[in-house]
Amino acid sequence: MNVLLTLDYMGTAYHGWQRQSNARTVQATLEDALESLIGAHVPIIGCGRTDAGVHARGYTANFRADTTIPLDRLPLALNAQLPDDIVVRNAEIVPDDFHAVFSCAAKEYTYTILNSHLRDPFLGDRSMHIPSPLDFGAMLECAAEFLGEHDFAAFRSVGSNVKTTVRTVCEIELRQDGSLITIRIKASGFLYNMARAMAGTLVWTGLGKLRSGDITAIIGSGDRTLAGPTLEPQGLCMTGVWYNAQ
Amino acid sequence: MNVLLTLDYMGTAYHGWQRQSNARTVQATLEDALESLIGAHVPIIGCGRTDAGVHARGYTANFRADTTIPLDRLPLALNAQLPDDIVVRNAEIVPDDFHAVFSCAAKEYTYTILNSHLRDPFLGDRSMHIPSPLDFGAMLECAAEFLGEHDFAAFRSVGSNVKTTVRTVCEIELRQDGSLITIRIKASGFLYNMARAMAGTLVWTGLGKLRSGDITAIIGSGDRTLAGPTLEPQGLCMTGVWYNAQ
Repeated sequence: MNVLLTLDYMGTAYHGWQRQSNARTVQATLEDALESLIGAHVPIIGCGRTDAGVHARGYTANFRADTTIPLDRLPLALNAQLPDDIVVRNAEIVPDDFHAVFSCAAKEYTYTILNSHLRDPFLGDRSMHIPSPLDFGAMLECAAEFLGEHDFAAFRSVGSNVKTTVRTVCEIELRQDGSLITIRIKASGFLYNMARAMAGTLVWTGLGKLRSGDITAIIGSGDRTLAGPTLEPQGLCMTGVWYNAQ
Repeated sequence: MNVLLTLDYMGTAYHGWQRQSNARTVQATLEDALESLIGAHVPIIGCGRTDAGVHARGYTANFRADTTIPLDRLPLALNAQLPDDIVVRNAEIVPDDFHAVFSCAAKEYTYTILNSHLRDPFLGDRSMHIPSPLDFGAMLECAAEFLGEHDFAAFRSVGSNVKTTVRTVCEIELRQDGSLITIRIKASGFLYNMARAMAGTLVWTGLGKLRSGDITAIIGSGDRTLAGPTLEPQGLCMTGVWYNAQ
């Protein structure tokens, strides 16, 4: 059977999702936990390759195996094998042709910025500290330029190999709560480092380095050097994954 | 001059506040940072000895030294020397006879419980996970029994050496926000492990092991074995310190 897991993880201690030969990763940790339960190594297909230090809430992953453990007990059984920074929240059977990556219709990432002259010791592993004051109104005004279907070549890091750099940003929401600014982006898909490059570009609008219309121009240019920096990984959290109705 | 520092720290990586010969502590880390700035070792008097793993927001500490660094720049100068999990928020001059412990009029601790059948990977270092459902209404009903001046001998761990075990609990507030329960206690002072033992006793009321009137009886007994357990340290955060007007 084809099983879909939903999990949360704190990425601080991991070199991202994807299994690597010499580094601790979420995929390898989860596959090891599953193996200790079912007695065989089964590959687990994750919905995306989060980078080292990036977190996830509601991450999805599927695997094909038969297990004698009732599905409703699988999360607790896996959690008993997993370290505290990975928690499986749900397990359900999905159709045979379901694939965590290829069946995906949209994903959401949320970037958290601490905009304060002082650090916060409780948020160092889950936000990026930007001490310079950000003009939130300017960020709000410019953010909408990302909406819609565009070629996001200017917002990806090298190292990715994709057929097309066209993606559709369907939602972008900025919130300010005290000294915390969050940038939530829902898109049909994300290029490598796209969410962090978009967030870095919005920070530039907040710093006055870019103004209204500039994001549209940067998208049109396809030139990565014109956009803002790729922000630090620990501020990023995958916060949603959507699948087409099966 | 006598300088009062206000700081926040994440206690996870420290063996509590108090300097120890063979362990990393907040006091020693802060004293080392100050020494690197002013070129001399100066003892820093903290408002209380938080335990290993316990956090603080608004912790206060004073030291007597003359420094050429302007006071308004001292927080940033210290923070540049400190690790990310300790942040000095403020520095101010206080009267010569001010002492972080002896001048203290009241303190506040907040205990955070994650009451959910599943762990949360983002809260493991800042809450205690209690999977059994807690009856929040019962906890609320019993909490008021702590209010007022009482002998809290039944709520302290051995190892403390105090003249009297009488303390006054002036405020106790319980909140429920989703699966998070917080217990905020403001008192004239706290005996060793008193906040964690009070929180553990309230958990027992939430589990139905104790009922209305039992806390009053336990206080009257002075018997530590009748009260609930000392909860885990990482759920505890010192959240306030009050001084008499000078």
